[in-house]
Amino acid sequence: MKILVINCGSSSLKYQLINMEDENVLAKGLVERIGIEGSILTHKVNGEKYITEQPMEDHKIAIKLVLNALVDKDYGVIKDMSEISAVGHRVVHGGEKYANSVLVDEDVVKAIKDCAKLAPLHNVPNMIGINACKELMPDTPMVATFDTAFHQTLPNYAYTYAVPYDLYEKYGVRKYGFHGTSHKFVSIEAAKMMGKDIRSLKIITCHLGNGASVCAIDGGKSIDTSMGFTPLAGLCMGTRCGDIDPAVIPFLVKSVGMSIDEVDTLMNKKSGVLGVSGVSSDFRDVLAEEAKGNKRAELALNVYTYRVKSVIGSYIAALNGVDCIVFTAGSGENSEPLRRRICAGLSNLGIVLDKERNNVMGKPAQISSDDSKVKVFAIPTNEELMIARDTKEIVEGR
Amino acid sequence: MKILVINCGSSSLKYQLINMEDENVLAKGLVERIGIEGSILTHKVNGEKYITEQPMEDHKIAIKLVLNALVDKDYGVIKDMSEISAVGHRVVHGGEKYANSVLVDEDVVKAIKDCAKLAPLHNVPNMIGINACKELMPDTPMVATFDTAFHQTLPNYAYTYAVPYDLYEKYGVRKYGFHGTSHKFVSIEAAKMMGKDIRSLKIITCHLGNGASVCAIDGGKSIDTSMGFTPLAGLCMGTRCGDIDPAVIPFLVKSVGMSIDEVDTLMNKKSGVLGVSGVSSDFRDVLAEEAKGNKRAELALNVYTYRVKSVIGSYIAALNGVDCIVFTAGSGENSEPLRRRICAGLSNLGIVLDKERNNVMGKPAQISSDDSKVKVFAIPTNEELMIARDTKEIVEGR
Repeated sequence: MKILVINCGSSSLKYQLINMEDENVLAKGLVERIGIEGSILTHKVNGEKYITEQPMEDHKIAIKLVLNALVDKDYGVIKDMSEISAVGHRVVHGGEKYANSVLVDEDVVKAIKDCAKLAPLHNVPNMIGINACKELMPDTPMVATFDTAFHQTLPNYAYTYAVPYDLYEKYGVRKYGFHGTSHKFVSIEAAKMMGKDIRSLKIITCHLGNGASVCAIDGGKSIDTSMGFTPLAGLCMGTRCGDIDPAVIPFLVKSVGMSIDEVDTLMNKKSGVLGVSGVSSDFRDVLAEEAKGNKRAELALNVYTYRVKSVIGSYIAALNGVDCIVFTAGSGENSEPLRRRICAGLSNLGIVLDKERNNVMGKPAQISSDDSKVKVFAIPTNEELMIARDTKEIVEGR
Repeated sequence: MKILVINCGSSSLKYQLINMEDENVLAKGLVERIGIEGSILTHKVNGEKYITEQPMEDHKIAIKLVLNALVDKDYGVIKDMSEISAVGHRVVHGGEKYANSVLVDEDVVKAIKDCAKLAPLHNVPNMIGINACKELMPDTPMVATFDTAFHQTLPNYAYTYAVPYDLYEKYGVRKYGFHGTSHKFVSIEAAKMMGKDIRSLKIITCHLGNGASVCAIDGGKSIDTSMGFTPLAGLCMGTRCGDIDPAVIPFLVKSVGMSIDEVDTLMNKKSGVLGVSGVSSDFRDVLAEEAKGNKRAELALNVYTYRVKSVIGSYIAALNGVDCIVFTAGSGENSEPLRRRICAGLSNLGIVLDKERNNVMGKPAQISSDDSKVKVFAIPTNEELMIARDTKEIVEGR
């Protein structure tokens, strides 16, 4: 069974065609500048790149070109589109309706549109991708995998904000959480690496990319996570502020004279590690500046790592202990110094890294020392594979 | 040595006259409705109440009446005002300038006025109280004790928000923390109860009144606390929301159509346990409603206790362990069910309450079981005594 996984942004589209017999990626690629001058498709097979530059007015044209590339007589990886058994679509927001991936039907389409209120920048292009695929492949089943779904197991006291309850009832103001597909994937992988049933484990997963979130997983179920109503909440990120005293916002509007839109942009695009360091949102740049003696770069990294440590602590309380901590995504998979600084000073909680093992980049590895009571892993995330697995399960189970 | 402690609000004034030989309260009282029709002074000596109802145009008149009551020939407790060796004033905001209590001089007056930008509702009346006392008792030393001072030992990575750094440099946007006098007092008392030097202890103090905050104290120094730039941040409180996804605020303004002032009021006055339960900001009312089967009352209490538990966890990480947890202020001193629910499910972190001991109300007591690795105490706070002790130390050390 071959499954195509699609992740559609407003002007971009990522895809992978995965052979589910061995979970190998047959081909993958990226379309950029859809609907903008300079549209470009970069298709990769076995490390070889194939570039197609031509105007792409909309996502339907882009997907048509992706399908053409997949069946191309020279560099194609399948003979016919009918070899694609199903398409798995990443959808950001499933609201309170979906706790799992789901076969796309009319109800699902309506639900995704309803949730667009909560995530307009994401759900609208996600839906465009689904519609374009349906037109081009009318007989192929489509599955939607939601970033929020894994966190639908949060208890109500963890997802309820302490604001008037009608904001939840009328407007859906609550914690949803994101990165669910990634937290789910790496927690399953961690259980495999420990040789234990995930149902017996308390796991904390740290997805540390440009966006970042931590998740507390009890017996395979998410019981808390640091992102919230939106992906702004929780940790300090590349350009996002995460949690701050909410009173800062009225202060910026009333005392500093900013508009609410300016504050919104400030919190999402100009804050985080970029805002504190004044250097960059890329941790490698900030680490390099710190090495040169830049004190604000050092502060930004300390703010960042302290916040991750704090959330790990709060989830150890929520879980009443922890068996395993996982680092994943850009910095989580690759950054020895960030992992080292996050885990420093947690020895009394049974968390001790092994200096040598922690040098790992981009492959699954235990990075805790043998005498660390809590196992710590770095595990590359693979949201596409998780979507493909969910898609396979759903189309086979039909 | 006798010290008068004054806590001046915008239309109210609390006071205690304390004999520092035995730290006994000689007299205490409350003036209400200063500058408003119906001004009233309630003066208490040995459990007896003495009421004075007469117009009080301003704080100076109010303080004059307090001094009169203290030297009253029938129910007075001193013969002459000269017996008051010093006055200790509670001041909410000392900004970054004061890490300790301080003798009031011109510089201090200027600093308190400067900090009024950050806490206008508090510092302005605090300053009015100081000025009125200075006029009435020109030769008596005045000491200012700041709610923020104890938290000036926070490391920069704990007090820096992940927003553009110039918001800190230009406008002082950072975490200050509050309730410092209370956190300091109960942590010192806890060390005494343990018979240990506070410099060797890791303590987490939970001040749970109508306002509420948690503090991580390492060797006697505050290293983190849950309130922030303002007292809105951190925990869910009686009517305050504490931390929420900051993106909720632009959502309420842009999508729900509220003004920023309405959002500000909503977060400060209509949220917290009141907002979620729809019942009351008083925990006793909400507990009673929960007992009748009210599900939103139950949810509000679960949100409240889960948040305290989460912050305790994050401070265990910040401290790399904990020796002692202290509950204080209204609910912290008195509420068996809230303490029980906060500490439930923390046994793997070495925290176990003793059911019988936890029944205590309003007096210092160990409430953890003998086999609890972490000692847990309920300790009534006494900010007035802490202010008086600081005041004594300063005037003696001159």
